[in-house]
Amino acid sequence: MRSFSLGEIANQLSLKLIGDSRCEITGLGTLSGAQAGQLSFLSNPSYIRQLVATQASAVIVDQRFADASPGNVLISDQPYVSFAYASELFSSRPIVKPGVHETAYVSPLAKISSSAHVGANAVIEDGVEIGDNVFVGPGTVIGRGVVLGSDCVLHANVTLYHSVYLGCRVCVHSNAVIGADGFGFAFDGEKNIKIQQLGRVRIGNDVDIGAGTTIDRGTIEDTVIDQGVKIDNQVQIGHNTHVGAHTVICGCTAIAGSAKIGKFCVLGGASGMVGHLSLADGVQVSAMSLVSRSITEPGAYSSGTGQMKLSDWKRAIVRFQQLDRMARRLKELERLTDKN
Amino acid sequence: MRSFSLGEIANQLSLKLIGDSRCEITGLGTLSGAQAGQLSFLSNPSYIRQLVATQASAVIVDQRFADASPGNVLISDQPYVSFAYASELFSSRPIVKPGVHETAYVSPLAKISSSAHVGANAVIEDGVEIGDNVFVGPGTVIGRGVVLGSDCVLHANVTLYHSVYLGCRVCVHSNAVIGADGFGFAFDGEKNIKIQQLGRVRIGNDVDIGAGTTIDRGTIEDTVIDQGVKIDNQVQIGHNTHVGAHTVICGCTAIAGSAKIGKFCVLGGASGMVGHLSLADGVQVSAMSLVSRSITEPGAYSSGTGQMKLSDWKRAIVRFQQLDRMARRLKELERLTDKN
Amino acid sequence: MRSFSLGEIANQLSLKLIGDSRCEITGLGTLSGAQAGQLSFLSNPSYIRQLVATQASAVIVDQRFADASPGNVLISDQPYVSFAYASELFSSRPIVKPGVHETAYVSPLAKISSSAHVGANAVIEDGVEIGDNVFVGPGTVIGRGVVLGSDCVLHANVTLYHSVYLGCRVCVHSNAVIGADGFGFAFDGEKNIKIQQLGRVRIGNDVDIGAGTTIDRGTIEDTVIDQGVKIDNQVQIGHNTHVGAHTVICGCTAIAGSAKIGKFCVLGGASGMVGHLSLADGVQVSAMSLVSRSITEPGAYSSGTGQMKLSDWKRAIVRFQQLDRMARRLKELERLTDKN
Repeated sequence: MRSFSLGEIANQLSLKLIGDSRCEITGLGTLSGAQAGQLSFLSNPSYIRQLVATQASAVIVDQRFADASPGNVLISDQPYVSFAYASELFSSRPIVKPGVHETAYVSPLAKISSSAHVGANAVIEDGVEIGDNVFVGPGTVIGRGVVLGSDCVLHANVTLYHSVYLGCRVCVHSNAVIGADGFGFAFDGEKNIKIQQLGRVRIGNDVDIGAGTTIDRGTIEDTVIDQGVKIDNQVQIGHNTHVGAHTVICGCTAIAGSAKIGKFCVLGGASGMVGHLSLADGVQVSAMSLVSRSITEPGAYSSGTGQMKLSDWKRAIVRFQQLDRMARRLKELERLTDKN
Repeated sequence: MRSFSLGEIANQLSLKLIGDSRCEITGLGTLSGAQAGQLSFLSNPSYIRQLVATQASAVIVDQRFADASPGNVLISDQPYVSFAYASELFSSRPIVKPGVHETAYVSPLAKISSSAHVGANAVIEDGVEIGDNVFVGPGTVIGRGVVLGSDCVLHANVTLYHSVYLGCRVCVHSNAVIGADGFGFAFDGEKNIKIQQLGRVRIGNDVDIGAGTTIDRGTIEDTVIDQGVKIDNQVQIGHNTHVGAHTVICGCTAIAGSAKIGKFCVLGGASGMVGHLSLADGVQVSAMSLVSRSITEPGAYSSGTGQMKLSDWKRAIVRFQQLDRMARRLKELERLTDKN
Repeated sequence: MRSFSLGEIANQLSLKLIGDSRCEITGLGTLSGAQAGQLSFLSNPSYIRQLVATQASAVIVDQRFADASPGNVLISDQPYVSFAYASELFSSRPIVKPGVHETAYVSPLAKISSSAHVGANAVIEDGVEIGDNVFVGPGTVIGRGVVLGSDCVLHANVTLYHSVYLGCRVCVHSNAVIGADGFGFAFDGEKNIKIQQLGRVRIGNDVDIGAGTTIDRGTIEDTVIDQGVKIDNQVQIGHNTHVGAHTVICGCTAIAGSAKIGKFCVLGGASGMVGHLSLADGVQVSAMSLVSRSITEPGAYSSGTGQMKLSDWKRAIVRFQQLDRMARRLKELERLTDKN
């Protein structure tokens, strides 16, 4: 198990330390769950009671909570961000052992940095270029002509189709599929004729892509994910979509084709967007809401009815289906009452 | 094709047989679809007409329907449960041939029971422990330090990240991913900093996990799935979630992080739960409903509007968006009418 | 880069050419994005301004727009369909190099056409039959007894369980899983007993299946997808379902078990169907709508509330939950007003 002195941690995170710099930190914990040897943090002031009672050996807090902390303290303007950096120290991400595993297949026409790792039973096709310190997990398949920037991590059983481009420090979780065909057909009156999908997928630096997520290649132009975008598991991103920098897309979200999504948006879990819509920068969509019209102003948007007991809900949806008639009856009453 | 005499089946299922014990049963059928040689069942009394007319060579029924059955009869208090056990006899699940396939890669630091099977092109990393009679399908990747109890079945192309723990008799279908990083980031005002996910995933005995399902590892503590939980395809379970014993989660359900789900719950297909909520034991959520507040009482809950013809629905949603104004107009009318 | 003379394209697509048959076409473009050397099309007359200004070297248009086109013209009654056929010429789909890759595992009991390709680290189990010109991508696993008709394309990391049947020209994208167990359990009062899933999956000719899609095998009878059905990414199709010919199922749709879906239906993205329902031919379901009752008439159906600003929406859902009471208050007012 890794461990660090609190002094080392303060140094690495550039934080002011109040307390014992030799205190040995062996891991992280929540305020309420932490044990001796662990580092915790207070970000939301409503947890102050847990701070006071914590068993953690040290906490990361804002200056104003320093006195309330029972043990050693690291002072941060952004305790949650500092905690994120601290978590990095204890990361169990794959270690990149340079070299190609003996069971992997690598095309002789691929160029792989000598510092990159290619895992067991991975497949690297013709013309692939893999940058420094890249980790390619076991069973991962990289199609012809793919380019991976440095420090990418592709976990096990990822699939990249041909000609996909990834920037640097992109992390792709297992069973994600990047570059499959977009869903485009022309109906000839009897059957659907496939529109070949001739574009690519381009992913910027520092993008995270969750397990089972699918990002389709463009029809003619490319599908583009800008730098810093964070995508959770089982998200579907249709062809020709453009996702702006630093946008966050939560799990199971379904984005139909040709969407233009701004920067710093947040799409809540299992939300959806119909095709050919755009979102301004800074739009937030709540969980399981459907975006059915473009949104030009930042702010929060929602759809749905909210949860109810089934018995109450059954009555409500009957009324929902009568709503137009109810509105007209209301208007009629207003007319009658007015006359009175 | 396997076949059993009806006597053998009665024996194995501990059921009373009325009829010919030598009757040869070669498979199962529905009441209406079964042919000679097949075994069927009546669970729901509303299908009694199909029972009377069935071509099945034998049926599993409750005592009170014995006389209505045209052929051989097996008597059961729980015909559907008995049918489930009967289906086991005809199962075509993978046969576990002990041994490691020549094309698999197994780390010399892994411990694999001599009765376990490791399929073609599977990858077993350092420190893995695999129990008796386990089946590891082709292309499946098992990360370092994973522990699998006895009699687990991992179908083809499953991915288990490092340090995942599975109990006994766990079944994982293809392309499921267990132990990928939870979705946690700290926003520093300019970009999102990853919170390393340091917890594990622990799965109890007799859990089933569907194809393409993803279960994320915990941030600090573990994600836990208790014994007997049944999870369908393409379900997403976020980090730190705890699912109580024998809960059933239908396909495409999206559970955000840090959920606490009770025992014997049923989450309908494509339902969702926002983060940090809890469900009491015995809660049922209907299909495509969103749980947006914790639920403390057992019972059935729902959200959504119910389905309508598009033309009617378009009018209804205009009214939905005017609903608050309608309510205030109604109140005003009541005031006026009251005055009258 | 491939290129074709416009004359060749006109020939292959059987279209009338107005202009220079020697004009070299190197790719496709949108009306507004195309450059010299590219072929575009006009399908929707509302884009006529883009037609007039296009830089494309040639366009596919209906006869009545021939004069409005600035360059070379191909005349088509169905310009979008013709464009689909043109896209075929520039397709970058995998090239089928006959033969089995040295790292693939093929059972000696499998029969593989000499014109088929089996990719690196693919696994072909006992009794599999693979037709002419089939492409099996790297890492793909084909279970025992599977039959693939000619000209199928299975991209990388696909999983077919045992006894699945695919017709001709079926395309399956990465990480799709066909034939996993349907989700069926019998509850015995204490726990859920698995119903073994003994049926198969049968897929007709010319079916497309998207990345990460799951199609479960039937319980007793088969799950059946008829010819020409187009299924997008991350769709879930439950056991015993029958999808009629030429139906289109958009991404992330969740179909519970035993559904009967007609021909030429369109299920919008992230829509859902509860179990045991049927849809007539020609039913269209809008995005993220739930089908909760069978639909016997063709036409368009929807559910949901439409999107709102979060602040407005919060008021609307409070009213939604009061809707039944509002309706009764309205009725009471009508009674009172009537009396007046």
